[in-house]
Amino acid sequence: MATDLISVSRDRARPFSSRSDRLFGALYARGEVALQASDEAWLEAMLDVEAALARACALEQCVPAAAAEAIVAACASDRFDLELLGAEAAASATPVVPLVAALRELVGEDVAGYVHLGATSQDILDTAAMLVAKRSLAPLLDDARAAAEAAAALASANRDTAMAGRTLLQLALPTSFGLRAAGWLAGIDEAVTRLAEVGDTRLAVQMGGPVGARPPAVAAHVAVELGLAEPTLPWQAIRVRVAELAGALGALAGVLAKIARDVTLLSADEVGEVREGGGADRGGSSAMSHKRNPVGAVSVLACTTRVPGLVATLLTAMVQEHERAAGTWQSEWGTIAELLSLVGSAAAWARELLENLEVVPDRMLENLARLASNGVAEASEPRAHLDGAHLLIDRALAAHRR
Amino acid sequence: MATDLISVSRDRARPFSSRSDRLFGALYARGEVALQASDEAWLEAMLDVEAALARACALEQCVPAAAAEAIVAACASDRFDLELLGAEAAASATPVVPLVAALRELVGEDVAGYVHLGATSQDILDTAAMLVAKRSLAPLLDDARAAAEAAAALASANRDTAMAGRTLLQLALPTSFGLRAAGWLAGIDEAVTRLAEVGDTRLAVQMGGPVGARPPAVAAHVAVELGLAEPTLPWQAIRVRVAELAGALGALAGVLAKIARDVTLLSADEVGEVREGGGADRGGSSAMSHKRNPVGAVSVLACTTRVPGLVATLLTAMVQEHERAAGTWQSEWGTIAELLSLVGSAAAWARELLENLEVVPDRMLENLARLASNGVAEASEPRAHLDGAHLLIDRALAAHRR
Amino acid sequence: MATDLISVSRDRARPFSSRSDRLFGALYARGEVALQASDEAWLEAMLDVEAALARACALEQCVPAAAAEAIVAACASDRFDLELLGAEAAASATPVVPLVAALRELVGEDVAGYVHLGATSQDILDTAAMLVAKRSLAPLLDDARAAAEAAAALASANRDTAMAGRTLLQLALPTSFGLRAAGWLAGIDEAVTRLAEVGDTRLAVQMGGPVGARPPAVAAHVAVELGLAEPTLPWQAIRVRVAELAGALGALAGVLAKIARDVTLLSADEVGEVREGGGADRGGSSAMSHKRNPVGAVSVLACTTRVPGLVATLLTAMVQEHERAAGTWQSEWGTIAELLSLVGSAAAWARELLENLEVVPDRMLENLARLASNGVAEASEPRAHLDGAHLLIDRALAAHRR
Amino acid sequence: MATDLISVSRDRARPFSSRSDRLFGALYARGEVALQASDEAWLEAMLDVEAALARACALEQCVPAAAAEAIVAACASDRFDLELLGAEAAASATPVVPLVAALRELVGEDVAGYVHLGATSQDILDTAAMLVAKRSLAPLLDDARAAAEAAAALASANRDTAMAGRTLLQLALPTSFGLRAAGWLAGIDEAVTRLAEVGDTRLAVQMGGPVGARPPAVAAHVAVELGLAEPTLPWQAIRVRVAELAGALGALAGVLAKIARDVTLLSADEVGEVREGGGADRGGSSAMSHKRNPVGAVSVLACTTRVPGLVATLLTAMVQEHERAAGTWQSEWGTIAELLSLVGSAAAWARELLENLEVVPDRMLENLARLASNGVAEASEPRAHLDGAHLLIDRALAAHRR
Repeated sequence: MATDLISVSRDRARPFSSRSDRLFGALYARGEVALQASDEAWLEAMLDVEAALARACALEQCVPAAAAEAIVAACASDRFDLELLGAEAAASATPVVPLVAALRELVGEDVAGYVHLGATSQDILDTAAMLVAKRSLAPLLDDARAAAEAAAALASANRDTAMAGRTLLQLALPTSFGLRAAGWLAGIDEAVTRLAEVGDTRLAVQMGGPVGARPPAVAAHVAVELGLAEPTLPWQAIRVRVAELAGALGALAGVLAKIARDVTLLSADEVGEVREGGGADRGGSSAMSHKRNPVGAVSVLACTTRVPGLVATLLTAMVQEHERAAGTWQSEWGTIAELLSLVGSAAAWARELLENLEVVPDRMLENLARLASNGVAEASEPRAHLDGAHLLIDRALAAHRR
Repeated sequence: MATDLISVSRDRARPFSSRSDRLFGALYARGEVALQASDEAWLEAMLDVEAALARACALEQCVPAAAAEAIVAACASDRFDLELLGAEAAASATPVVPLVAALRELVGEDVAGYVHLGATSQDILDTAAMLVAKRSLAPLLDDARAAAEAAAALASANRDTAMAGRTLLQLALPTSFGLRAAGWLAGIDEAVTRLAEVGDTRLAVQMGGPVGARPPAVAAHVAVELGLAEPTLPWQAIRVRVAELAGALGALAGVLAKIARDVTLLSADEVGEVREGGGADRGGSSAMSHKRNPVGAVSVLACTTRVPGLVATLLTAMVQEHERAAGTWQSEWGTIAELLSLVGSAAAWARELLENLEVVPDRMLENLARLASNGVAEASEPRAHLDGAHLLIDRALAAHRR
Repeated sequence: MATDLISVSRDRARPFSSRSDRLFGALYARGEVALQASDEAWLEAMLDVEAALARACALEQCVPAAAAEAIVAACASDRFDLELLGAEAAASATPVVPLVAALRELVGEDVAGYVHLGATSQDILDTAAMLVAKRSLAPLLDDARAAAEAAAALASANRDTAMAGRTLLQLALPTSFGLRAAGWLAGIDEAVTRLAEVGDTRLAVQMGGPVGARPPAVAAHVAVELGLAEPTLPWQAIRVRVAELAGALGALAGVLAKIARDVTLLSADEVGEVREGGGADRGGSSAMSHKRNPVGAVSVLACTTRVPGLVATLLTAMVQEHERAAGTWQSEWGTIAELLSLVGSAAAWARELLENLEVVPDRMLENLARLASNGVAEASEPRAHLDGAHLLIDRALAAHRR
Repeated sequence: MATDLISVSRDRARPFSSRSDRLFGALYARGEVALQASDEAWLEAMLDVEAALARACALEQCVPAAAAEAIVAACASDRFDLELLGAEAAASATPVVPLVAALRELVGEDVAGYVHLGATSQDILDTAAMLVAKRSLAPLLDDARAAAEAAAALASANRDTAMAGRTLLQLALPTSFGLRAAGWLAGIDEAVTRLAEVGDTRLAVQMGGPVGARPPAVAAHVAVELGLAEPTLPWQAIRVRVAELAGALGALAGVLAKIARDVTLLSADEVGEVREGGGADRGGSSAMSHKRNPVGAVSVLACTTRVPGLVATLLTAMVQEHERAAGTWQSEWGTIAELLSLVGSAAAWARELLENLEVVPDRMLENLARLASNGVAEASEPRAHLDGAHLLIDRALAAHRR
């Protein structure tokens, strides 16, 4: 039944319009994740929570089954006017107050009293935030894993592609491009492992009632209904879960940024060792027709540069007063949505970037020749020095397959 | 003529739809500033820049006057499909490439060559960003100044309203509520002074061409057309202006946050010295009908908590490569829009909050009595100790009127 | 043998002088963690890494056993002039270059060639950073766990201590102070669990050689010697581990800040429900002898307010070029040291705060009476409404004991 | 007399020991600024404030002249044990409480009552922080201005040094290295202008007494004594001044980071257009003797990467409660010290970097040839396209000389 509810609600939810920046959305909100973090998705999630709460109360015998099903039926996002709810939120600093009022009107007088039973605004919004995160992580992790797969393919295909290693941007000693890609792979794998763990175990229901003292039975049912974790306690003002989500997203963003930065450097004309693929019209300039800009890498960095500040905001917002904060809690909603959207967009861009990356072994050899001319003997026979690289690439690929 | 162009374009621009969070916009995007920082406003601003560029080129005799006017006429935002431009931006990591293509199509083959003459994408986007900032600062500063005015009224009316000063949240010694309000006033005044200065002198045209080496004549004309400052040099990768805007917005946000935090503390039931006004249905709770939540203060804090992270992002993004950055520049657009919207929303909320704040002198006396019972003699006759406060309130009011 | 090496070096390391702010160290650098993150501790750790490397090379037969032991013997921090090394670091932007030179001189010409064999500066510094983190986490986690223990004791002792729950700083409905403390407990427990996991599994050796292509055998030995994890690959420019450490520290800081904020609010004179204990001279003011300032809570917040910015710095610094970054890597050292010291200090303060917190049930009842007078019937008989709280407290205590 | 006091105290203050990171100080704390932001300098500044307060009170006739001079005489930092004061600060979360106690003991019973008259801890610490900032800005601005001078010399000397402009790291169109340097110059000049303005007008005395209600006369005298601005009101919980200082430092750091990033990119072997000078042993590697690392640029970036997070911390810390904050205020001290030290160190490194930068015009021509071979005709005769660059360089130089 739980599965039912969720799949129904996910069908209802489509098609979303994109959440925010329509003009800059190609950069900041690429891929499905932007839909999953959109205003419409939040509304959908809030309704899913009200529906799950009604069913949980029915299981606990405090709401008649018929009333619960009437509430579930009414929790259809297309019956609500998102912008009107948004506007009415001004009176209470939460859209849940007008949402509950609208839902009560929708179900009629007899059932109205069973709507939102024993819950508080924060229960609905916090659980909805976790649902939004959970649903956003699905495409986000898909893209990140596909990016890892593409990095693995690059590592494997370029085991023997000699290139100059560079430290502090100076030519250093020979390595292989396969090892560089293996490093990217290991980084994505580590960040994805942690983020998936957070998604599976730390995104939990909130159902504590007005001051967080509601007995845990209803929360347990809601958790099952929605596929979220059940917390030991309500976490109304204890925001470790939000911080862990933010930290894991921040780490993934950092890895993707490192990869993108490498691509911008390696695709500089003077280096020329890689090129973004993806079609002839890609990377055009409004002023210089000869250029081929690293659009994917630039877009990854456009997103990821914005991430550390958002993570810091969520850490700062952990300072929440008493049983519900006055301000810091309310700062989370937009921040979480931005964070999911930006990291998801970066993952989508990184996937495309890595799946289409073109490697230019000849330029790598040219640059190794420059290194050899600097007096580095190993650079004259770079392939003779790849044993360590081979071992390490194999380790990365083996760890990835596990 | 310059004024013409701008006023025309501002008329065309209305009504905007709100830029971002429709569901949470009542918190994060209150007031007119959200419109001025919307996607539509950015499109409008980019078109205003292309129009001003055409006229500037006409003045410089490199575009025929008729062609320039044809371009100006075509630069009407309702002739462009914002979402389509946004989608096409994916190929080049900038919406300017598809915008210029669409504009060229619109003006026809004969004029097309005069569109975007000698400019690069960054010229259009940077100048548009400055225009968006300038136009957003108007309502934002209006609201902030009205908030200062309300604080001044509170300071003046409460010169003799004795209250307990509190340090580290402990009752300390008597002061007057007027002095507290005078401090708020001084803070807003200082932050507004700096922000207005940034708006008047530091928001400058960008018109450097592909690598920032375009002679300055066209930039000078465009500056006059658009009411922006003329920079000494193109500032393509030198982002001090953006940093100064961010810093000034951050300081204002901090002052508003301080005021809002004071209001949440003073309106706690146990303190009870102020109350948010603004109507009977204000501050309702979904679960507890007896409560009257400090909705305005909460909303200010919901916005301002998000600001320091955004300022840090823009400072981090100053590290821009060569003549145009690969990623950090592109991270600015969404960040600037968020920052303007959030600080503008905080200013709108703070204005409303201060204009309707209700002071409760009796509770102040009650709390002073508690202080007196702690053995602080001054608290028994608090009005006898307000000479310093009076002098300081008068100074704040005098400085405000200057 | 590995254990030997470590315990020897830890003995040698004492007594450290405190690392940084001597004047403000009582706030920012309380407890043993400040010693573990001091300059001396970093030097010690770097020498431990050079020693472990020598032994690892001996195991791999590339350094004679006697030479390795000579190197180990020379790696005594009291034989090095920390400030001189620091000064000489200016020539290479790393203290490892002068350190290796000094170490080579110390062991004499015959052994010099075996020092730092196959390693690069980053190997030493990264592994040392992980060692510093590992050694700092020991006292830090001790203090955090003791704080959790104290919270558990408060939760248990105050199961039935009725107090008013507060949302948005407004009196809401009755709860128990035990449940508040149980929330603190759950938060610390969650944050500690994650931080301990990072400490146990993610702090790994770096031993990749100049461009990260060194075969993994030596790294494996060094990991065993030093008690650190062995990574799949060198992680020279893949900084997920650093980000995970930062994120976990940030989450703990946020929980401690929440607790401290609660204490400042609850110990405000008008609320008066808790008081910091810890001796008669505690919390004095330079100007107001009647005051008793919440010194512990203030100190926790002084530390934790500084944390989110540091976490953001480390996330930003993940963007590292090629095989070794030019600048972002080098920004990590001071940031990691600050972060460990501040979170450790916050944990030490929080422990003391919670172990000495005095609860004032009578004031809680007074405030509940105010709530009752607001028309909230439950507040008249608050103990009749604690069933949920009891269940939840028991869950938190049970989870804590697991 | 005021001047006397200051110069005396500055003499007494030397030699400081460096404030913090002895091991990493070559990177993070280069130049005199680190001394000016050291613990010793803070102690010195606090004593200067107590001395200035005593004299101000004498002018106001509330302290006998002889007592004031006795206090001034006692305010010699070598008579205080910095580490002991730091340790005793634990009891009150401020070193001012033990400092005042020690000072009272030092002056003897008869004068003790005149020490710290009417002041509160925050008066001393806030004014000291402003003094520390003022004194740190002197060498910091000296270095930044010298860096600007060096950039001006590069701009002037390289007016005709053709190089390829680069956008998104791709070769774009010809420009001159002189214009690049002129951009650096303009950026430093803008940031310095603002920072100097903050230093001259916004660093103000704090002398509000326990709750900020002290009449302004004493503050006015202290301002004259110490060479700081006199504020309209005490600004105990209104931290715009701190935010403005932070913002201006952040903007300068960003410009220096941009320059350093350019240097790392231009000095990459494959580009080879500039080289850091500064002596043969500069830039050595522990593993690769052929390398010449861009040590200065790396050090600038090591410092500046740490800055945005610190600025965000100070903006976050603006949320200060009532008449004195519980935690956020106390978080400022260490943050301000770090910020001054890091930006000062970056300025010292940038100065050295720019004063010794070697330009390699031949490599610039080689890279232009690559651009020409990409089909960009202008790159074949780059000097024919420098008219715009010339005009702009001249403007930057003229603006700099003003």
